[in-house]
Amino acid sequence: MTKNTKVNAAILIIGNEILSGRTQDTNTSTIALWLNSIGVRVNEVRIIPDIESVIVKAVNKLRVNNDYVFTTGGIGPTHDDITAESISKAFNLNYEIHKEAFKILENYYKPGEFTEGRQKMVRMPKDAKLILNPTSGAPGFSVENVFCLPGVPSILKSMLGSLKNEIVGGEPILSHTISLRTVESEIANSLTAVQDKNQDVEIGSYPFFQAGKLGVSIVIRSEDKLKIEICSSQIIDFVKKKKIEIVNRD
Amino acid sequence: MTKNTKVNAAILIIGNEILSGRTQDTNTSTIALWLNSIGVRVNEVRIIPDIESVIVKAVNKLRVNNDYVFTTGGIGPTHDDITAESISKAFNLNYEIHKEAFKILENYYKPGEFTEGRQKMVRMPKDAKLILNPTSGAPGFSVENVFCLPGVPSILKSMLGSLKNEIVGGEPILSHTISLRTVESEIANSLTAVQDKNQDVEIGSYPFFQAGKLGVSIVIRSEDKLKIEICSSQIIDFVKKKKIEIVNRD
Repeated sequence: MTKNTKVNAAILIIGNEILSGRTQDTNTSTIALWLNSIGVRVNEVRIIPDIESVIVKAVNKLRVNNDYVFTTGGIGPTHDDITAESISKAFNLNYEIHKEAFKILENYYKPGEFTEGRQKMVRMPKDAKLILNPTSGAPGFSVENVFCLPGVPSILKSMLGSLKNEIVGGEPILSHTISLRTVESEIANSLTAVQDKNQDVEIGSYPFFQAGKLGVSIVIRSEDKLKIEICSSQIIDFVKKKKIEIVNRD
Repeated sequence: MTKNTKVNAAILIIGNEILSGRTQDTNTSTIALWLNSIGVRVNEVRIIPDIESVIVKAVNKLRVNNDYVFTTGGIGPTHDDITAESISKAFNLNYEIHKEAFKILENYYKPGEFTEGRQKMVRMPKDAKLILNPTSGAPGFSVENVFCLPGVPSILKSMLGSLKNEIVGGEPILSHTISLRTVESEIANSLTAVQDKNQDVEIGSYPFFQAGKLGVSIVIRSEDKLKIEICSSQIIDFVKKKKIEIVNRD
């Protein structure tokens, strides 16, 4: 893959606790922001339960349709952690003890503490590539274009850095936000006209409510800084004509 | 549908701002908790971009596989709000002005303020059923088993109440959480044994880090209170034997 190619990813959040609403997923946003910064767009996110057949099917669908797939969750030591075994099935690989991971955790724990329960965390698809974990020892892993990360947000965050050299992104996706003291319907037609003139730029409109006042953030996204600037100036033009207050630009 | 049947739903989050990581989705958790309370389980969540063909395909897949589908986002007045038109295409229905919705917004706005821009919000699939919006006037809508809600979390929350009579759930899904001062690997084997003895109960294990201390929350879920109690007592048995501190039960 060369620069300037559009590079896409899917995120697969594995875990009943997200589907039940008990836990609020924050990993999507963490991974997406990081991917954007290295030029990878997230095409799709799926949140699925801890059911092997569902995981296998989703992984096999997403890995074909996207350049990269990132999974979160299900790589701990308990009975509901079935991601590694499911990924093995998805790729038709043996699910077995990973020697390098075994050594890492053998060194990480005090003598006698690397118990049978913990050894589940070093069982992975055969020949998986490790994703090192600076926070709590137990590594993630990747097979081909599928990268398996833990569900605990702080641990996941600490592991993304070590992935930087594994992911080949396109041009970073740039964005510019113009926040206005207005409501969407005041600017809808003018904004549509700007979008029509700039079809390869992504323009989003998001109402907000802050300090008791309504506003709209217009977000312009593209790999091309110049295109963002052209769009911005067209938006600022109609904003000035309509005498709308600009709250913020960044 | 009678009580005791398992009733399932999918949630479809529509919006580039979630996929880019700019906005943290909270609607999944809001909808899932509310659905659980009326006996509906969320099977799957998908987050997809503001692209018509993607929305049409996802809606048509999910509405066949689930009793209910809830979409969020894309029903405002701007060019990137394409949910109503996409749902019309998915069901092969005309996308047209909804008379009842028109009347609601005509009354809601001051004379002259129900502008052409705002009238986009009353264009819907032909004969769609309205979902009333006590917060900001503009209604959501449903077609068959697909319910379309706005993306703004506070508005979405205010609209769920009016849906209660539209959704026929099964038995409410009950849960009990036992939080322990331990790590997952200490309890993994014992917990697996409890899960094996109680296969139709969902047992999840979730590490947490609170006030500088590690812990694990065990979440037991079922429609059957007695089954949860049996599971709990088996867990408490091994917890006491292992002399693990119980931090909390709820």
